Amino acid sequence: MISYEEAYRSVLDATRDFGSIQVPLKAAHGLILAEDVRADRDFPPFDRVTKDGIAIAHKAYEKGVRSFEIEGVAPAGGPQQTLQNHENCIEVMTGAVLPENTDTVVMYEHINIENGTACIEKIVSRGQNIHKRGSDEPKNASVLKKGTKIEAAEIGVLATVGKAKVLVKKLPKITVVSTGNELVNVDEKPLPHQIRKSNSYSLDAVLKVEGIECNLLHINDLESEIKKGVATALQENDVVLLSGGVSKGKYDYLPKILEELGVEKKFHRVAQRPGKPFWFGTKADGAATVFAFPGNPASTFASYHVYFLPWLRRSLGLPLDEHSVVLDEAFDNPTGLTRFIRAKVHLKRGRLKATLVLGNGSGDLTSLAQSNGFVRFNPETDYSEGDLAPFYPTKRILQ
Amino acid sequence: MISYEEAYRSVLDATRDFGSIQVPLKAAHGLILAEDVRADRDFPPFDRVTKDGIAIAHKAYEKGVRSFEIEGVAPAGGPQQTLQNHENCIEVMTGAVLPENTDTVVMYEHINIENGTACIEKIVSRGQNIHKRGSDEPKNASVLKKGTKIEAAEIGVLATVGKAKVLVKKLPKITVVSTGNELVNVDEKPLPHQIRKSNSYSLDAVLKVEGIECNLLHINDLESEIKKGVATALQENDVVLLSGGVSKGKYDYLPKILEELGVEKKFHRVAQRPGKPFWFGTKADGAATVFAFPGNPASTFASYHVYFLPWLRRSLGLPLDEHSVVLDEAFDNPTGLTRFIRAKVHLKRGRLKATLVLGNGSGDLTSLAQSNGFVRFNPETDYSEGDLAPFYPTKRILQ
Repeated sequence: MISYEEAYRSVLDATRDFGSIQVPLKAAHGLILAEDVRADRDFPPFDRVTKDGIAIAHKAYEKGVRSFEIEGVAPAGGPQQTLQNHENCIEVMTGAVLPENTDTVVMYEHINIENGTACIEKIVSRGQNIHKRGSDEPKNASVLKKGTKIEAAEIGVLATVGKAKVLVKKLPKITVVSTGNELVNVDEKPLPHQIRKSNSYSLDAVLKVEGIECNLLHINDLESEIKKGVATALQENDVVLLSGGVSKGKYDYLPKILEELGVEKKFHRVAQRPGKPFWFGTKADGAATVFAFPGNPASTFASYHVYFLPWLRRSLGLPLDEHSVVLDEAFDNPTGLTRFIRAKVHLKRGRLKATLVLGNGSGDLTSLAQSNGFVRFNPETDYSEGDLAPFYPTKRILQ
Repeated sequence: MISYEEAYRSVLDATRDFGSIQVPLKAAHGLILAEDVRADRDFPPFDRVTKDGIAIAHKAYEKGVRSFEIEGVAPAGGPQQTLQNHENCIEVMTGAVLPENTDTVVMYEHINIENGTACIEKIVSRGQNIHKRGSDEPKNASVLKKGTKIEAAEIGVLATVGKAKVLVKKLPKITVVSTGNELVNVDEKPLPHQIRKSNSYSLDAVLKVEGIECNLLHINDLESEIKKGVATALQENDVVLLSGGVSKGKYDYLPKILEELGVEKKFHRVAQRPGKPFWFGTKADGAATVFAFPGNPASTFASYHVYFLPWLRRSLGLPLDEHSVVLDEAFDNPTGLTRFIRAKVHLKRGRLKATLVLGNGSGDLTSLAQSNGFVRFNPETDYSEGDLAPFYPTKRILQ
C-alpha cells in the first residue's frame, strides 16, 4: 500500500497528450486553446468615436469658434467621412470612424443643436471621447495564449479577431465501466438484494462539466464478460474509468483481468479513506489509462476529484493549483490514512471556510449532495479550528 | 437616471416563473429540481456487508468458537442466504445482503482460511462491518429538496432512489439580438470601418453555462427592420437580450421601438460604469422580459452578471448570495457612479483576494479574458487595501 503522495505523483507521471483539433468557434467554449492567438488588425481598427455627439477640429475651438454648422452625420458602420470646412462639424455616433480633419468629439449632453448648428456649452479638450486606433492592442499583439481555457470572455476575443475556427486540445475518449451483479438501472425496480447504479450517472455528469461526453458500460460479475467488455473498452478509448471490483472479494476480478489485458499496474491500494482499493495503470503501448475506483459512491467521487481531474488538467496543459481553505472546526486524524472529508465551503468576510459534512445518519446517499468538496487531512495529524487545509471543489463555490 | 440599487431592485421585482417540465435523469444535470425527492426504500435497503470476509453469529464467538466451517458464499447481488448452523459462517462480499442468522462480519485480513474453515485471529465486536438497513435514510425520508441545483452528486442521489424522470424548473427561451451596421460575422473580413460581432458569441457562451441554448439574431440599424425583428423575438421568447442601440445616438431606435411594441420601460440609464445606458422592461402581459444592454463588450458582460444572472437565479427559485472578496489594493471612486471593475480573484491562505484589472493599453479586447469577475464599488467612496467589496464571478474561481 502506498501513500497518497506517492499515488498522486504516480498518476501525474502518467499524463498524456491527446493532440489538437480545429473546431468552430461556438464549439470551442469550455475547451483549452492549443494555439497562440494574435490581433489580426489594430484594436480598435480606427480612431473610434465613443460618445454620440459631434466631431470637430480642436484648432477651430482654440480659435474661439463655439457654433459649428453640421456638415453631415457619421453613423457606426459607415465609411470614414471628411470634414470639408474646418470650422464646421459632423454629427457622429458611438462606434463610428472619426471623420477625417476632426480630432475631438463633444457629446450631445454638452451641446445645443438649433437650425443645423451645434453650439458648444462646455469646456472641450483635444482628443476627448475617442478610442485611439491600436490603443487596446496593436496588430499582431498576442491576445490569448496557448493553454488558456476558453470561457465566455475568450469567445468574445476570438470572435473579435476573426477566429471562426479555433485549434483546441482534444479531450480524451472515455468509457465508464461499472461492475456488480447487485446493480440495476435507474428505471428498474430493484429486488430486495439489489440497488440502483449511481456512480456511472455521477461520473457521466462530472465529465460533462469538463466537456467530455463519455460512454457508459455495465458488466455483470462474470470473469469472462468483464474481460471481454474491458478489452473492448481499452481498444476504443483513451481512458477507462472503472467503479467497483477492485477490493479483496472473491468476485473482484478486475486487477487480474487488467494485467492480463496488458495494462501495467502502477499501484493498487492507497493509504487513504475513502478510496483505499484504488487501482491505477496504463497500457504498455501508452494507448489507454485506467483509473479503477472502488465502488462506494464517496470513494469514486473523491478519487475522481483527487486523482483523475488533476491528471486530466495536466494532460490538457492546464496549471494545477492547490486551494487551501480555513477549517471551521477542529479535526483529528489519528489514522495512518490520508482522509478526504466531505465539506461545505462558504465565503465569509472574504475567507473560504469549510464546515465538515460528517456521516452519521446522513450517510453516503445524501452527504455528497450536501457538500461542495472534499478537504484533505494528512495521516496522524491534528487540525485546529482556523487551520488551513487543501480543498477539492466538487461544485462551483461562488454560485 | 436611477441608482444601481434601484435598478437592481426593479430587475428583481420582475422575476418570473417559467413552470416545470419532466426530463430524463441525464438531461436534468445543471437544472433546478422542481419537486421534493424522497427515499423510495430504506437506504441501505438491507443490512449491507461493508468488508469482504465472513459473516458469523456473534453469540458463537462469545461462547468461545474461533474456527468456523464455511457453509457457502454470499456475493453482492445475490438473494439473502441463511446460516444453517450457528457455529458455522458464510463468506460474504462487500455489498452483499448480510445472511440470516448472522450479525457480525470479520474481514479477510483478520482471519485465516484453511480446508474450508475460517479461523478468527482478532477481537471481534458484535455488529462490525455492517451498514445497517435504513441507517443512511429511512424510506420516505427527504433526500433532495425542491429548488436544489442538480449537479453530479444530486444525479447520483436521484439515480439511487429511481428517479428515471425528474421534474425540473423550465429555463426561459432566449434570443440574443445584436444591432449595428458596423458589425460583421466572425467569418467575414471587416471593411476598415467595420468590426466583428463579439457580444452575441460571449452571451451565447455564458448562457450555455446556465444550460440555456439561445438563438442569435443580428439586425442592421434600420428602424423598420429592427422593429420587425424585435417584434418576432418578443413573440417567440421569454427573454430578449439586446446588445447595442440604447445610447443617445440618432440610430439608437430601440427604446422607442420597444415601447411601441408594448414593452413597458422599467428604467433607462443607470448611474453606473460600465453600462450607463442599460434599458430594462417587460411586456405588459408579462410574456417577455427585455434586457437591453449597451453594446460595449464590458458593459454587456458586466450587466449580464450584475442584473441578468440574479434575475434568472431568482426566477428559478435559487437563493441569491452576495460574495465579498478582499481588495489587494486601494481604489478610490470619486464619481457619482457605481463602478464595476474587472478583477482577478485568487485564493491566498484561505482568503479570496481581488487584484483589479485596469484598462490602460489592455483595453476592452483582452481585459475581460484576463479577469475572472467584477468588483462593485459604491459611488463617492474610497476603499483601502484589505477592505471587502462585493464580487461577481464570471469564471469558476477554484478551477
